[in-house]
Amino acid sequence: MSKDIDGRRRVVIEGVKPQINGGQFAIKRAVGESVVVKANVFGDGHDLVRAEVLYRRRSEDDWTVREMQHVVNDEWTARFEVDSVGEYVYTVRAWIDHFATWQSDLGKRHEAGQDVRVPLKIGAEMLRDAARCAEPADAAKLNAWAETLEAAQDVEVAVELARSKELTDVAGEYPDRSLATMYEPELRIRVDRPRAVFSAWYEFFPRSFGADGRHGTFRDCERMLAEIAGMGFDVVYLPPIHPIGQVNRKGKNNATVCTPTDPGSPWAIGSAEGGHKAIDPLLGSMDDFQRFVEKAKGHGLEVAMDVAFQCAPDHPYIQAHPEWFRWRPDGTVQFAENPPKKYEDILPLNFESKQWQALWEELHSVVQFWIDQGIRMFRVDNPHTKPLAFWQWLIEGIRKDHPDVLFLAEAFTRPKVMQYLAKAGFNQSYTYFTWRNSKWELEQYIRDLTQTEVGEYLRPNFWPNTPDILPQYLQCGGRAAFIVRLVLAATLSASYGIYGPAFELCVSEAIEGREEYFNSEKYEIKQWDWNQPGNIRAVIERVNRIRRQNPALQTIRNIQLYGIDNESLLCYGKSTEDQSNVIVTVVNLDPHHRQSGWIQLPLDAFQIDPRQTYLMDDLLTGDKFIWQGQSNYVELDPRVMPAHILCMRKRLRRETDFDYFM
Amino acid sequence: MSKDIDGRRRVVIEGVKPQINGGQFAIKRAVGESVVVKANVFGDGHDLVRAEVLYRRRSEDDWTVREMQHVVNDEWTARFEVDSVGEYVYTVRAWIDHFATWQSDLGKRHEAGQDVRVPLKIGAEMLRDAARCAEPADAAKLNAWAETLEAAQDVEVAVELARSKELTDVAGEYPDRSLATMYEPELRIRVDRPRAVFSAWYEFFPRSFGADGRHGTFRDCERMLAEIAGMGFDVVYLPPIHPIGQVNRKGKNNATVCTPTDPGSPWAIGSAEGGHKAIDPLLGSMDDFQRFVEKAKGHGLEVAMDVAFQCAPDHPYIQAHPEWFRWRPDGTVQFAENPPKKYEDILPLNFESKQWQALWEELHSVVQFWIDQGIRMFRVDNPHTKPLAFWQWLIEGIRKDHPDVLFLAEAFTRPKVMQYLAKAGFNQSYTYFTWRNSKWELEQYIRDLTQTEVGEYLRPNFWPNTPDILPQYLQCGGRAAFIVRLVLAATLSASYGIYGPAFELCVSEAIEGREEYFNSEKYEIKQWDWNQPGNIRAVIERVNRIRRQNPALQTIRNIQLYGIDNESLLCYGKSTEDQSNVIVTVVNLDPHHRQSGWIQLPLDAFQIDPRQTYLMDDLLTGDKFIWQGQSNYVELDPRVMPAHILCMRKRLRRETDFDYFM
Repeated sequence: MSKDIDGRRRVVIEGVKPQINGGQFAIKRAVGESVVVKANVFGDGHDLVRAEVLYRRRSEDDWTVREMQHVVNDEWTARFEVDSVGEYVYTVRAWIDHFATWQSDLGKRHEAGQDVRVPLKIGAEMLRDAARCAEPADAAKLNAWAETLEAAQDVEVAVELARSKELTDVAGEYPDRSLATMYEPELRIRVDRPRAVFSAWYEFFPRSFGADGRHGTFRDCERMLAEIAGMGFDVVYLPPIHPIGQVNRKGKNNATVCTPTDPGSPWAIGSAEGGHKAIDPLLGSMDDFQRFVEKAKGHGLEVAMDVAFQCAPDHPYIQAHPEWFRWRPDGTVQFAENPPKKYEDILPLNFESKQWQALWEELHSVVQFWIDQGIRMFRVDNPHTKPLAFWQWLIEGIRKDHPDVLFLAEAFTRPKVMQYLAKAGFNQSYTYFTWRNSKWELEQYIRDLTQTEVGEYLRPNFWPNTPDILPQYLQCGGRAAFIVRLVLAATLSASYGIYGPAFELCVSEAIEGREEYFNSEKYEIKQWDWNQPGNIRAVIERVNRIRRQNPALQTIRNIQLYGIDNESLLCYGKSTEDQSNVIVTVVNLDPHHRQSGWIQLPLDAFQIDPRQTYLMDDLLTGDKFIWQGQSNYVELDPRVMPAHILCMRKRLRRETDFDYFM
Repeated sequence: MSKDIDGRRRVVIEGVKPQINGGQFAIKRAVGESVVVKANVFGDGHDLVRAEVLYRRRSEDDWTVREMQHVVNDEWTARFEVDSVGEYVYTVRAWIDHFATWQSDLGKRHEAGQDVRVPLKIGAEMLRDAARCAEPADAAKLNAWAETLEAAQDVEVAVELARSKELTDVAGEYPDRSLATMYEPELRIRVDRPRAVFSAWYEFFPRSFGADGRHGTFRDCERMLAEIAGMGFDVVYLPPIHPIGQVNRKGKNNATVCTPTDPGSPWAIGSAEGGHKAIDPLLGSMDDFQRFVEKAKGHGLEVAMDVAFQCAPDHPYIQAHPEWFRWRPDGTVQFAENPPKKYEDILPLNFESKQWQALWEELHSVVQFWIDQGIRMFRVDNPHTKPLAFWQWLIEGIRKDHPDVLFLAEAFTRPKVMQYLAKAGFNQSYTYFTWRNSKWELEQYIRDLTQTEVGEYLRPNFWPNTPDILPQYLQCGGRAAFIVRLVLAATLSASYGIYGPAFELCVSEAIEGREEYFNSEKYEIKQWDWNQPGNIRAVIERVNRIRRQNPALQTIRNIQLYGIDNESLLCYGKSTEDQSNVIVTVVNLDPHHRQSGWIQLPLDAFQIDPRQTYLMDDLLTGDKFIWQGQSNYVELDPRVMPAHILCMRKRLRRETDFDYFM
């Protein structure tokens, strides 16, 4: 018989959730969020069991304990909150509750008219055992009760005492856990700062903001910060700011030949002027960059860096570390390809290199370098084209010293790979939102993200556009389409981002037959007129203000889909746990036509009497609607405003009200 | 960086199924059954991956390999068969398939009109690498091909060669697995002999078969064996055969007082005459028992013993091992209770005893004792009232030396406990079938048992009745009800059992308001008249013969539910994998009224042209029906026969047939 088992531990704990890949990966939470733990807990026979969730900061020794409640069918649950950045662990402990079993059996015996004097004696022994480990005051109580039970002068009184709340509470404080079962392995929680969950990103190319068409610099961009902050964003994300390769530089519209004035793609990183730790001199100096980051902070903006682990053909790595690249029989380095597509300006790193360890360490040093410059957010370009184990190692390593650093995975690839990147540690993830337009697509996708295990580890960041992607919907739907996608991104997800100013100026010209920008900013310097007529900056500003003022919108975990009898109208709600803030959003997905329909709201959940009226305050337009009952009419004209963001104001009862309940 | 990882292993394997509790428990199969393994397999980037299932007998070193196929969405699958009793392990191995990636890319490049001379050289290198580990004949081929590709005198020819089937097949034989990922942990399969899956049990009380109302003996029962075998059963299960306690012996109908002639419950085990290793002298000697077991074998019958780990108050253990019992303050041993119910004739063992190890060892020795007497099947009484860890230890220990031993769990308790007992090792399990009467209940239960993970480890054994349970349905439905439950048990499940002769004689008298037999055989000696009018022995014989002659009925894993437009009619089918044996069963669940309806059959699955007729041969009655199309009429009169067991006979095409396809 194995010595490490104690056969007297009679309780089984299994099916503990949340649990990712058998505990291999952590679930994710932000400070202040809660974890709902579920487990199957049962013992043999008819004895009652008691179960509790244990959790602690990984660095600490002492567990905090939360009593679990039985739900149904041997399924137990408890909830706790995490309150600081870093790593937590949790597990479940459970044991046969002999005292509660005895209490329950005593009641049944007594009610059946059986002689309970011996059972009362057994209970007295249990109370004395509890007294031995109790605080002095409690011990005295427990011993006194034991005496009463044992004497059993009046059986009726003794049974009543045995089942009394006070005795139950005091005895319950000192359970005998000596034969408790402890679930293994301990499960992990990665706790992030709140911005991991709630953030609004603004991406722009600094080089397009020079005066008079010159190549923009960080100094030039300082004036942008007030504008971006004014629109309500909190993260400024810059495409790579490193020197751009000269060799095989791409021209306008991804042309394989460039002119001397073409700036090249910022993702073709590295030249004689430096690599991943250098700054493109055309943008300024390291000092300029740091000043820009500081100025941003002053506006409440955090700067997110791009991490693109790939090299232009003239990146210093190629000379210094030829072993990190794939060399072809003709003596050239293999450039990036997805045949028949070619990316001649970009050389992928060879992660199957025999020197892979040195490569990993170097890439780690790149991230560490920018952390040392004050950066705490990284948007990682195409992480799915580098080994998944590398990201796990990198992110875990960085977080050991810098648990406040956040990584956003820019992976548009197959579902299981996207999910695995999130499991491996990415704090936020790009999503398929960009191509989910119709009602059933959006509803199904929201369910996938929030009502499955995926919600435990993948935090979506919704982008209506990126420099690489101008979706068909935005190409065809005019200004209303941009507002539709803005409202969806900003109210479905708690984190979202736009690539601007192309977005707020409703730029919709694509390469024929593709979902790519014509004259893409990736390959040229643009001059944007932010005040161009038809821009939607005011709407963006309003939407971001609504997000900030309404805590219900600051998480995706609370989203509920509501029925509405029109396939062009999508309706969903978010509420704080205490229902003090309830937001109902209705979006007309048809950017061309007025659409109307009847919404079905779950009034029970809102604790609204179906006979009472309530006010729906449209935070987007200022319109106010008096609604009553679960079914109410909405009508949205895309030429006016294609969405409602309705804040529910429950009617206050006044003395003078007719009382429906009398 | 951890030294035990190789960062160049770029493939992830996750979600490997079947997998019970993260690999803690084995899945179950019988010899000749197959295992379908599924896994999520993917790497970074666009490279193709290759995946294979590895399996072996646990005692052997060498893996057998089965190539996996990609299904959809990075989900891969492979199937293999297990062919001997014992333990197997399996896992998944996968790697980036550089050769296939190169082939695929080469095709795309060539089709796009790109220069492929350098890619052809790269491919030539790969072929030479493969040649280095190839059989001489293959090596010669590979090197010759490499030369052709490298020379590339005619690019068109070279590309065609590179993508040819022969080259693909030969190169595919020598993959480079040096950077393969191996899934951990290895997952286990417990492989049983076929009777674990397909068995028909007959339970009876030997003491009721004495001549002229005397207490029956094993010698008396020898004449029963031909009858039981004649009815088509293959397992004879006997209630406990040990000395029955004298102290607190129960009388007729579970009375707390007995008369001197009352035989007591066989489950009140142990008296001065011995305990769990002794035989009740009233039944005979150990020699008589062994002779009975041998005689049974001669009839093709296997004897299953009852294992009931509990003691009558006069069991020798109480004196010899007082530490294995729970003593009450009044100096008595705690008897079994489920308050307010009392079982005064039974003392439970105290598994929380400090001497639990000695107790476990003793109980192990009981099972071993009967194995030494030639027993290989045990029906375990109330396993859910003993620690789950104990069963796991016991069954694993026994199987180490006796992998052919089978345990049936007689647990009627909560779902998760029933499931855990099966996970812990029980080869078969009693089920809720006994109380599933209506169509939706039966359909839902069959889905739970066969379309969920439960099917991987829990093998149902359906019992329409037991000495403890006379379900309401059998109390009220007359003879037809017994036939309905027989057909359901025997054709839904591959293992089933009856408690006879009460079943075949359609005994339906219950204690008022309960589902227990009136004058239960548990507490008295019965005299059965097997030829009583109205008995269903002929039907039982026919059903068991149908089960033996139709391999489709010898597993539950293949069951399919079919639609039928009448809530009183249940329809389901079972087929062998090659469709050579197709059985469609229709049961009228209403034992009182004739019911009719239209069945919907999936003709596609049967490869039957919807315009052709086919024959349905009712194996129960000999009736034959010509059907055509997916929708056909059935009508079942419970006064005649409440079920069809239809064998599908596809129509043979003859030269003279009008050909529908011309």
